[in-house]
Amino acid sequence: MVCRMHRTRVYAVLIDTPEAQAAEAASFWSAALGAAARVDKREPQFTVLPDALPGLVTVVQSVDDAPRFHIDIETDDVRAETARLLALGATEVSDWLECRTLRAPGGHLLCVVPVHSDPDYFAAHAHTWP
Amino acid sequence: MVCRMHRTRVYAVLIDTPEAQAAEAASFWSAALGAAARVDKREPQFTVLPDALPGLVTVVQSVDDAPRFHIDIETDDVRAETARLLALGATEVSDWLECRTLRAPGGHLLCVVPVHSDPDYFAAHAHTWP
Repeated sequence: MVCRMHRTRVYAVLIDTPEAQAAEAASFWSAALGAAARVDKREPQFTVLPDALPGLVTVVQSVDDAPRFHIDIETDDVRAETARLLALGATEVSDWLECRTLRAPGGHLLCVVPVHSDPDYFAAHAHTWP
Repeated sequence: MVCRMHRTRVYAVLIDTPEAQAAEAASFWSAALGAAARVDKREPQFTVLPDALPGLVTVVQSVDDAPRFHIDIETDDVRAETARLLALGATEVSDWLECRTLRAPGGHLLCVVPVHSDPDYFAAHAHTWP
């Protein structure tokens, strides 16, 4: 039996907004939370509000769906973390590039993604799972 | 003309969950995020996960509605902060005790509440609005 620990950390809170209202929502949340907004031209569906919440990346994402939020969990082992969350009762929704989207008991979405933070910051703030 | 500054801070992220699944959701999020869960017997609709997100109170709330999230903004002037957010494009949803519930452009909910944090912590981390 091979035992390998993996680590996780909540990386981002995403304010998923219907496309027609996404620009207005991004302006609102930027002003409401007092956080400058930044759009990456390569990924225009994301408006990042870097300083809106402490220690977390806050993003307004344009989606083809009803208004919702979701949380991104970054991890050094996407497969192991996905398996852990499925064992806790989550169900699989989709698998896009390296991101696994799950639905939690109760109906909320969460995504498991590779580590996006600076590796030292991740190591200092991550949970370790056996 | 009377000018009075007020201060705000994001206090809490609430994972609002349909009542029938709220207990299961609270167990899931507690285990998923590695945070102990605490229920206040006086307010059994709330399961608090104190250490789930840095600097924020995370709560699974049982609601009579579809799954959603909302954010609580704490402030030393609920009236002024509500007026500021309405001017930014939010709309009023309800007014319950000292909590004002608003809907942001894009459809998400947020609540304006009196200061819940320790006053020194609030002062150190709040935004000041003119």
